[in-house]
Amino acid sequence: MKYVYLFGNQEAEGTAEMKNLLGGKGANLAEMNLLKIPVPAGFTITTDVCTHYYDNDCNFPAGLNTEILNAIKQTENAMGAKFGDDENPLLVSVRSGARTSMPGMMETVLNVGLTSKTIPALIKKTNNPRFVYDAYRRLIMMYADVVMEKGGGAEIERENGIRHKLESLLSEYKKNKGYKNDTDLNGDDWKSLSKKFKNQIKESLRSEFPDDPMEQLMGGVEAVFKSWNGERAINYRKIENIPDRWGTAVNVQAMVFGNMGPNSATGVAFTRNPANGENKFFGEWLTNAQGEDVVAGLRTPNPLNEDTKTEDTENLPSLETSMSEIYSELFKIKVQLEKHYSDMQDIEFTIQEGKLWMLQTRVGKRTGSAAIKMAVDMKEEGMISKEVALKRVNPEQIDELLHPRLDKKNENEATLLAKGLPAGPGGASGRIVFTADDAESWHKNGEKVILIREETSPEDVHGMHASEAILTAKGGMTSHAALVARGWGKCCIVGCSSIQINLEKREVEVAGQILKEGDWVTMNGTKGYLYRGQLELVPADPDSHKEYKVLMNWADEIRTLKIRTNAESPSDAKQAIVFGAEGIGLCRTEHMFFDEKRIIAMRKMILADDPVEKRSAVMGLLPFQKEDFKGILKAMAGKPVTIRLLDPPLHEFISLDNSQIKDLANELGLKSNLIEKRISSLHELNPMLGHRGCRLGIAFPEITEMQSRAILEASAELIKENISVHPEIMIPLVGNVEEYKNQADIVKKTAERVQKETGVELNYLIGTMIELPRACLTANEIAEHAEFFSFGTNDLTQTTYGFSRDDIGSFLPEYLDKKILPYDPFQSIDKKGVGRLLSLAVKEGRDVNSELKIGICGEHGGDPSSIQFCKENGLDYVSCSPFRVPIARLAAAQSELK
Amino acid sequence: MKYVYLFGNQEAEGTAEMKNLLGGKGANLAEMNLLKIPVPAGFTITTDVCTHYYDNDCNFPAGLNTEILNAIKQTENAMGAKFGDDENPLLVSVRSGARTSMPGMMETVLNVGLTSKTIPALIKKTNNPRFVYDAYRRLIMMYADVVMEKGGGAEIERENGIRHKLESLLSEYKKNKGYKNDTDLNGDDWKSLSKKFKNQIKESLRSEFPDDPMEQLMGGVEAVFKSWNGERAINYRKIENIPDRWGTAVNVQAMVFGNMGPNSATGVAFTRNPANGENKFFGEWLTNAQGEDVVAGLRTPNPLNEDTKTEDTENLPSLETSMSEIYSELFKIKVQLEKHYSDMQDIEFTIQEGKLWMLQTRVGKRTGSAAIKMAVDMKEEGMISKEVALKRVNPEQIDELLHPRLDKKNENEATLLAKGLPAGPGGASGRIVFTADDAESWHKNGEKVILIREETSPEDVHGMHASEAILTAKGGMTSHAALVARGWGKCCIVGCSSIQINLEKREVEVAGQILKEGDWVTMNGTKGYLYRGQLELVPADPDSHKEYKVLMNWADEIRTLKIRTNAESPSDAKQAIVFGAEGIGLCRTEHMFFDEKRIIAMRKMILADDPVEKRSAVMGLLPFQKEDFKGILKAMAGKPVTIRLLDPPLHEFISLDNSQIKDLANELGLKSNLIEKRISSLHELNPMLGHRGCRLGIAFPEITEMQSRAILEASAELIKENISVHPEIMIPLVGNVEEYKNQADIVKKTAERVQKETGVELNYLIGTMIELPRACLTANEIAEHAEFFSFGTNDLTQTTYGFSRDDIGSFLPEYLDKKILPYDPFQSIDKKGVGRLLSLAVKEGRDVNSELKIGICGEHGGDPSSIQFCKENGLDYVSCSPFRVPIARLAAAQSELK
Repeated sequence: MKYVYLFGNQEAEGTAEMKNLLGGKGANLAEMNLLKIPVPAGFTITTDVCTHYYDNDCNFPAGLNTEILNAIKQTENAMGAKFGDDENPLLVSVRSGARTSMPGMMETVLNVGLTSKTIPALIKKTNNPRFVYDAYRRLIMMYADVVMEKGGGAEIERENGIRHKLESLLSEYKKNKGYKNDTDLNGDDWKSLSKKFKNQIKESLRSEFPDDPMEQLMGGVEAVFKSWNGERAINYRKIENIPDRWGTAVNVQAMVFGNMGPNSATGVAFTRNPANGENKFFGEWLTNAQGEDVVAGLRTPNPLNEDTKTEDTENLPSLETSMSEIYSELFKIKVQLEKHYSDMQDIEFTIQEGKLWMLQTRVGKRTGSAAIKMAVDMKEEGMISKEVALKRVNPEQIDELLHPRLDKKNENEATLLAKGLPAGPGGASGRIVFTADDAESWHKNGEKVILIREETSPEDVHGMHASEAILTAKGGMTSHAALVARGWGKCCIVGCSSIQINLEKREVEVAGQILKEGDWVTMNGTKGYLYRGQLELVPADPDSHKEYKVLMNWADEIRTLKIRTNAESPSDAKQAIVFGAEGIGLCRTEHMFFDEKRIIAMRKMILADDPVEKRSAVMGLLPFQKEDFKGILKAMAGKPVTIRLLDPPLHEFISLDNSQIKDLANELGLKSNLIEKRISSLHELNPMLGHRGCRLGIAFPEITEMQSRAILEASAELIKENISVHPEIMIPLVGNVEEYKNQADIVKKTAERVQKETGVELNYLIGTMIELPRACLTANEIAEHAEFFSFGTNDLTQTTYGFSRDDIGSFLPEYLDKKILPYDPFQSIDKKGVGRLLSLAVKEGRDVNSELKIGICGEHGGDPSSIQFCKENGLDYVSCSPFRVPIARLAAAQSELK
Repeated sequence: MKYVYLFGNQEAEGTAEMKNLLGGKGANLAEMNLLKIPVPAGFTITTDVCTHYYDNDCNFPAGLNTEILNAIKQTENAMGAKFGDDENPLLVSVRSGARTSMPGMMETVLNVGLTSKTIPALIKKTNNPRFVYDAYRRLIMMYADVVMEKGGGAEIERENGIRHKLESLLSEYKKNKGYKNDTDLNGDDWKSLSKKFKNQIKESLRSEFPDDPMEQLMGGVEAVFKSWNGERAINYRKIENIPDRWGTAVNVQAMVFGNMGPNSATGVAFTRNPANGENKFFGEWLTNAQGEDVVAGLRTPNPLNEDTKTEDTENLPSLETSMSEIYSELFKIKVQLEKHYSDMQDIEFTIQEGKLWMLQTRVGKRTGSAAIKMAVDMKEEGMISKEVALKRVNPEQIDELLHPRLDKKNENEATLLAKGLPAGPGGASGRIVFTADDAESWHKNGEKVILIREETSPEDVHGMHASEAILTAKGGMTSHAALVARGWGKCCIVGCSSIQINLEKREVEVAGQILKEGDWVTMNGTKGYLYRGQLELVPADPDSHKEYKVLMNWADEIRTLKIRTNAESPSDAKQAIVFGAEGIGLCRTEHMFFDEKRIIAMRKMILADDPVEKRSAVMGLLPFQKEDFKGILKAMAGKPVTIRLLDPPLHEFISLDNSQIKDLANELGLKSNLIEKRISSLHELNPMLGHRGCRLGIAFPEITEMQSRAILEASAELIKENISVHPEIMIPLVGNVEEYKNQADIVKKTAERVQKETGVELNYLIGTMIELPRACLTANEIAEHAEFFSFGTNDLTQTTYGFSRDDIGSFLPEYLDKKILPYDPFQSIDKKGVGRLLSLAVKEGRDVNSELKIGICGEHGGDPSSIQFCKENGLDYVSCSPFRVPIARLAAAQSELK
C-alpha cells in the first residue's frame, strides 16, 4: 500500500481523478503539475492513512515514516532547497484536504521547518530578518495551539488557551512599545516575542516548542489528521451529510511567500463570477501579503482586473495593471484550468518575488442563479454537453429563483430570535398576528402580516393565505402548515419549539423577549430562522432569467418521468402550469368544505340521525363541489387531474367552542347538548389512525356518491363545452382491497347514472392512494381492481416509522443531531423502510396489472433524491407543490442521466 | 357433472367424507346407509347446485330436473311407494344441509307430495284421516310461508305475513268451535281448515297452492336454496365465519311419521352427555309426535333411559322401558355410530308404527368441560389417539373452565341493556361505580363493583383491580381496559358505544333507562352483553376437572412452542405459573410508576429543567423498581423474564386537573403556570405515534439507565441468594437500528458497572420489541445487534393497518358487518399484512443471526389461529395473559399436529 503521493516540477503521482484517496486539494495539486502549471512541490498523505489512524487507536501505519522521509527528499530536489538546512532551508505547509471541501473546519500549520538552525540561513538568504521572525512567531503560535495544546483535537478556541495567552503577550508588547499595528513591529521585536512565546509555552504546556524540523512536520501531520474529528469538523459534516468514514488527506507542500516585499503578492480568484455567473475573471489580491490576509479582511483586497471594478473598488490597483505580465500568465492559467476541468474554478495563487505559483484549484461554489447561467453558457460555448449542463445545477438551487429572499449581509447583521424547521423556502417580513381572522382583517387593511400559531388547521386557511408567512410552534415538515404553505410557495417555519405563545395577551415570548401583536419580524424559510424587525427582501423573478428557461427546456427534452402538481384551486393549478406541471397528482377536497355556506351543510350531515336528512345535507354540497371541480378541470384542460375523495376525520369540521355550539344549535334548531355529545363522540385519541379516508366513505356512502357525482357532472358539462377532461378519482387510505371495492363500486354506479342522465361518455379512472403499509403488502390484490396507484408517502412514512408528523418536533431534531436518523424521512424518502414498501407495491401491483399507472403525491414528489428513487422504481410521474415543479423537472432529467 | 346423490336401502352414492359436496346431513345419511342402519331413502342435491344457482342469476343447471326425476324413481323403488300415487303415495321432506350445521337458519318443507290425489290414498292406507289432514295443513302452512310468500327468501317472519294469517284462521276456528288445543281438532276440522287456508292463500298471494307433487317438490327445493341467502342464515354465517361461497345442499327424503299413533314416536339423542361429557346415552323422546314437537317445547319430552333421569323427569316414561326392543336397537346403533365416527354423535330418530328409522347423525355440540372429558375418556377407552384427543378440544373452550360464568337460563331471562366488544371473558355481577377511586373505596367496604368509564388509563388501574368487571364506552379489543382486564382474567366489555355516561351526575343512560351509581348490573364478557340486575354466577374451578389436567399434560408433551405470559407483578406471575407459563414474555414497567410515591418522582423528572435534577429524580425511582423486579424475577426463578423498558408518552404521567396542578406546584415548590406550560408542551395530537418507546429512552437516557440498573441489581442480589434469574431487557418501539444501538449501549454499560460493583456475573439478554413496519423491513440490520425479537403485534397491527386501537370502535363493527374485514385483526393476526411483515422479519433476522430468539407478546399470543401462524413461522415462543396460557398450551400442541 502506498501512503504518500508526490507532486512537483510538473510531474505528479496522482491525478484529479484520485479525489477519494488524495482529497480534493491533493488531487488538484497533482493535476495542475500534470498540466505544467507552476505549483510548489510537495506530497499528499492519503485519506487511507486517516482511516487507518482512527481504526487503530490513533496509530499511523508502519512504513508511513519512511515514505514521508523519501517524499521530503524529493520535494527538496524539486525546490532546490533542503528541509532543516543551514544554507538553503526548505519550509513547508501542512494542510488538510478532504474529498469535499470543508473550508476552515480543519487545522493548518505553516512555515514548518523554521528552527534555530534554519532561521539564520533564511535571514542570510532573504536578507529580511523581519520576514523570517514574523514567519517564526506565526509558526510558534499556530503550532502551540494546534499541535501542542489541542493536538489537532476537538475544541473550538478556549478562553484560557495557549493562543489566547500568546496573543496577550503580543498586545502587551505592542502596548509597552507604543505600537498600534502588527506591521509596526520590526525583526528584533518579533525575535524577542518569539522567545517570550517559547517561554510561555514551556510554562503553560510543560513542554518545549520543538526545534527539530521533522518533529515539527510529524506533529503537524498528526494534528491535521486529528482535526478531522474536531468539534467544528464533526458539526460541519453533520450539516453537509459528509460520512465520518471518508477521512481527510494531508498535504505537505513547499512554502512560497507573498509577503517577501513589493514584488510579492497573493490572491484568490474565480474563473467566472460566482454570484451572477457572468463569464468574467473575478478575484481579489494583495501585495506583500500572505493568503490568510486576503481572507481575514484586515486589509481591503484589490480587484483582480479593470473589467470587474465596482464603485467601491475603482480607485484600487488591479493586478492587471500593477503586474501585467503576471496577470496575463495567470489569465492563461485560468483559461487552461476552466477548459481542463470544464467548470468554473476557484483558485489561489502567490507571487513570490515576481514568480507566480498556483496553490490551489477547485470547483468554485456559486449561487443558484450563477449555476444556471454558467451551465447554459458553457454548453453554448461548446465546453460541456447538454447532459452535463443539466447535471451541473443542483435542483434545490432553482428554489432561489422562485421565492423572494433575504439579503445575506442584512441577515448576518440581524438579531436571530429562534430556529425551527424550514418548511417553506424564501424570505418574508411582516407584522405579527396570532389568529387567522386577524391575519385576514389586517391584510385587508393593507398590512403585511406573519401568522404565528401553535399549529394550524384547515380552519386557518383563509388567514394563512392572507399572510406573508406562517410560523408554528409545533409540527414537522409535513404538518398542515408546512403542506399548505409550500403549496402556495409561501415562506413557512414549523416546529419552532422555543417560542411561547400567549394567545390571550396576543404576544409571544422568544429568546427572552416579548413580541406583541403588530411587531415586525422577518423569516428565512429556507433555513428556518426568525429575525427581529423588518429586513429588506430580494424579489423573485424567474421570468427574467433567460438561461433558466433554456435549462428547463433541456430538462423537459430529456426526462421521461412526468411532473404533476398538488393543487386544489384553479389559481394554484394555473400557477403550476406556468411552472411546467403536466397534470394534477393530488387535488385534496377537504378545504372546499370549510367555506361558510358549505360547512353548515357538512355539520348538518354530521349531526343528522336520520339517514334521509343526512343524505339531503350531503347532497346540498353537490352544486358547490361541482363548481370547484369544474374550475380545476377547466384550468387543467387536456391534462389528468387526480381528485382525492374526502380524507380527514369528521371532527375537523365541527371543532367548535361553546358559543359556536350555541349558534349552530340555533341555526339547526337542535339542542346544544346534543351537539356537544356528538362532538365528544367524534373525539379520537389518535385521529391520524382513526375514522378517516375511505373509512368515512364506507360509513357515509353518500359523501362518496356526492363527490363522484360532482366530479363526473362537472366533467360532462365541460365535455359539452368541448373541453377535454381527464379526471382520476382517488380513494384515500385503502388498506384492504374490500375497502377499495366498496368505494369504487359507488363511483362506478354513480358514473353509470351520470352518463345516462347527461348522455355524455365519460373517460375517467378510479384508483387509490397507497399510504398504509398494508396497502403496499397487499398491492397485488388492490391492483387487480384499481386503475392507478398514487403513493401518499407522507402517511406511509408516518405509519411505517410510527411517527406522527404533528408530534415529531419533540424528538426529530435530537434524532438528526445524534445521527439516529441520517435525514428527515418526511423530506426525503426513507429508502430502506418506506422505499422498500413502495418498490414491493410497484412490483406486485404491476405483476397483476401491467397497465397500472403509478405516481407519488407525498411531499417527497418534490425532493430530488426521492425523485431519483421514484424513477429507479419505474413510477410514471411525481406530483409536488406548484413551487417545486421546476425543481422536480430538473431532478427528473437528472434521474435519467444517472 | 353429477348433481344428485342417492341413498337408501343400505346403499348410497355418497360417503361421510363428501361433506363439502353433500353437506353434513347428506353425507351422514349416505354413510348410515353404508353402515346398514335403517334410514328412509332419498337423495341429496349438491352444494355445487347452490353455487351454480347463485352464480347464474338464480337458475338451476341444465340436467338437474332429469336427475331429480330419476332420483325420485329410485326413492320410490327403495320405499315401495310412489310419489303422487293414488294407491301407495310417497311423501318426502325437503331439508337444507350445509357443510357445517346451521341449526334452524334455513327452511324445511315437510309432507311434500300431499295432493287431492294422494290424500284419499293415504287415508285409505293409514285409516287415519286426522293424521293425513293434519299433515296436509302443515304442508300448506309451511309451503305458503316458505315457498310461495318468501320464496325461501330473506325476511324473518313478517307481522302481516301469510303464516300469521293462517294461524289467525286456526285460532278463530278453535275459538268458534270452543277448542283449546290443536289436539282437539279432528280430521274434518283439519280438512275444512285446509280449504280455508287455500282460499286465504289465493286471496293474499294471488296464486293457488299447487296440487301437483313435482311442482311442490321443485318449489321446496328452490326455497331451501334461496334460504341460504335469507337474513337469518347470512347473520349466522357472519357470526360463525362460514363463507358465503360454501352454499347448502338439499336433502329430499321419504317421510316417516312418528305421529301415526301410540306405536309411533320421535326423539333426539346424544351418544354422551353434551353438558358434562359423561359417557351416558342421553336424549329425549315423545310418543305419537313429529320431530318438531320435541324441539318446540310445547310438550315436555320424556327421558331416553332410566340412567339419565333427573328429579324433574323421574316420573316420566323412558324409551328404555316403554319400547325396550326399539331402545336396544337404538342403543346398538348409538354404539356403532360413536365407534364409527370416533366421536360423540347427535342423532335424530323416528319410530313409525314400531319400526325405527334414523333421520340424522352428526358430531354433537358440547360444552368446553364436556369436550375435554370426552376427548380424554375416548383416548383412554382406546377409541382415539392422544393426538386426536388434543385436536378434539377447541382451545377457546378451555376458557370456560377458567372464569366464572352466567347460567344460560338466567341469562335468557335477563334484560339485555347493551352490547359491546367481548374484551375479557366470563361473567360478573356488581354495583355500578364511575371512578377508579370510588371502585376502590366501595370495594374496601365489601361491595362488589363494576367500573364504568368512557375509557381507562393507567391511572385507573387501582380501581380496575378492585372491580369485578370493567365496562368502557370506547376502545377496541386491545385498548387499555381490554389489555389490563384480560391480564387479570377479569370480565370486561369495551366499545359499548350505546351507553351515555354522565360522570357528574354519576349515572349512565342505556337502552332508554337511567342507571345510577350503586345499581346492580351483570356482564357476560364472553359475549359482550350487559344485563340489568344481579344474576347468579357459575364459579370457575379448573382444578377439580381431572381430565383438564390430563389433556394439558398431553399438550405439553407434544408442543415445541414455548408458552410465556404477559405479567407485571409477582402475583400475576405466580398465577401464570399455575396455568403453566414457562416464562414472562412481556413485563410492562409503566404501571410501576403510578404508585403515589413514585409518580411524584416521575413528575419531578418531567418538570426538571436542570439535567442534574432530572437525573436525581429518576434515580429516586431506582429502589422501588429494584424491588418490583426482584419480586417478579424471584417468582419466575429459573425462567426467562422479558422486561420492557418504559414505553408510554410522558404526558400519561402528568395528566392533571387544575387542583392537582396546584397541589403538585406546592409540593415541588414550582409555579402552577410552569407546570401547565410543560403539560401543554407534552400534549400530542397522535400520542400513539409520538414521543414514546425508545424515543423516550433516547431523550432521557437516565430512564434507561435507571431501569436497567434496577433489573440488573435485582438480578445480582437474587443470584447472591442462589436464585437463578434470566432477565431479558427489551427496548420498545425500535424502527431503526441506530435507536437500538443507542439504548443497548446504555444497558451494556450499566451492566458492566453493576457487574463490577457487585462482583456478580450477570447472564442477561438485550433485544427489542418489533412493533413497527420499519422494524420488520430492517430486521436484518437490527438482528445484527439484538439477541432477541419479540413481536408487539398490537402496535404492529395499528401501524400496518393505520388503525388506532382506541378509536377503531367507531368503524370496526361496521367493517366486520359489511365483511370489509373478515375478522378483527387485533384479535387474530392479519396474515396478509401484519403476518407478512412478521414472516419477513423472522426470515431476514435469522439470516444474519441464526441464534436470534423470537417470540410474540401482542394479544395475538393467546389466539389459537395466530399461535398456529407463529409456529409455522418458526417462532420460539408465544406470550399471552395468564388466563390465556392454558389455551395457548393446547393451541401450541395443535399447531404441531397440523
